[in-house]
Amino acid sequence: MTITMYDLAGAEADRRFSPFCWRSRMALAHKGLAVETVPWRFTEKDKLPQPNAGRVPVIVDGGRVVHDSTAIADYLEEHYPDRQSLFGGVAGRALARFVQNWTETVLLVGLIRLVVLDIHRHCALEDQVYFRRSREERFSVTLEEVVHDREARLPAFRTSLDPLRRTVERQDFVSGKGPAYADYVVFGAFQWARAISDFEVLAADDPVRVWRGRMLDLFDGLARRAPAYGD
Amino acid sequence: MTITMYDLAGAEADRRFSPFCWRSRMALAHKGLAVETVPWRFTEKDKLPQPNAGRVPVIVDGGRVVHDSTAIADYLEEHYPDRQSLFGGVAGRALARFVQNWTETVLLVGLIRLVVLDIHRHCALEDQVYFRRSREERFSVTLEEVVHDREARLPAFRTSLDPLRRTVERQDFVSGKGPAYADYVVFGAFQWARAISDFEVLAADDPVRVWRGRMLDLFDGLARRAPAYGD
Repeated sequence: MTITMYDLAGAEADRRFSPFCWRSRMALAHKGLAVETVPWRFTEKDKLPQPNAGRVPVIVDGGRVVHDSTAIADYLEEHYPDRQSLFGGVAGRALARFVQNWTETVLLVGLIRLVVLDIHRHCALEDQVYFRRSREERFSVTLEEVVHDREARLPAFRTSLDPLRRTVERQDFVSGKGPAYADYVVFGAFQWARAISDFEVLAADDPVRVWRGRMLDLFDGLARRAPAYGD
Repeated sequence: MTITMYDLAGAEADRRFSPFCWRSRMALAHKGLAVETVPWRFTEKDKLPQPNAGRVPVIVDGGRVVHDSTAIADYLEEHYPDRQSLFGGVAGRALARFVQNWTETVLLVGLIRLVVLDIHRHCALEDQVYFRRSREERFSVTLEEVVHDREARLPAFRTSLDPLRRTVERQDFVSGKGPAYADYVVFGAFQWARAISDFEVLAADDPVRVWRGRMLDLFDGLARRAPAYGD
């Protein structure tokens, strides 16, 4: 049975740019599950199936509604144990959480200060007001002010990727020889950035960029085929 | 048969302060292997069994010499497969590398700028000249200058621990419900600092400190019984 996934979309319905939705999208592909995505905007909270937390991703699988990317990964692992594992066991799941926590406290925090104005540009008109107000409250300055010195901040951002860089220099994927959930979590952040911004955050010769290319190739180029900028 | 481990020592032979040696010491205890440590100083390169890279840890196990903490962990996992696993499988081993790379590019880099002068104070007299020269070459300033503003840098250091903090807030150990190699890698850094410095790098209520306490309790307080400062 096809799983339905509510997926954050921009003004163009096929521009999908949530880092959390990309985690789930890749995890579903990893499990080899058929999925139909429903484009969703920030201001369409009443269009999500219950229960939800007013955010995406939300999936519906044969009547079961699961929301939150972490809960979705756990759900898929538990309900589809015969498919390729997302975690590779108990230790793998625990350690993937460290990678996720690094992604959320370092990578996403660094990236949003580079591309937040580009997100606004790509939002549907009805979302732009909501997005600007909520994010400017968070940053206490305008979106334009957040990004105005982004060129100057790029070297520090790239240095902050050192743990990831050293890892993918020495093994093809964060999870080892093949990709798994920890890779999808980190990749979701980069795919988010490239889906809405032409500001290339990775140098051409960065091993992180080579790894990103490997991620874009997965599942017949699932993420590469999606509307985005750069390689 | 008892394994011999060459272990970095300070002026006092029982003050053991290498973050890399602590990884191996905890890994050996995790495997339940008997070990006899040999105190070793930076300038005793000719006292190490061959082959070595002029650094510790080096272990000798029934005539086999293994050097480098990562190689030692792999050796122990391979040669003692019936003992409790250090990695919890292939995925766990790959993801532990990410934690190790974070430790080496963020945690150790932050810590040394807080405690490098305290290391010098604890070195054996014959090591002090070597240590000061090699580290001042690396930092391009005196050891005193490296640490003089450490109080001011402490908040940023603590923020850099966010990925670790969020992880051990939500699970007892980095590796999940029980400790494993990723924990020993991170712990080695903190044990190094507390072995040679009374500068407490963690706030009293920091979840990272609570986790450090759990690590100190392991193996009948192996690391807690070693000469060190604070809790």
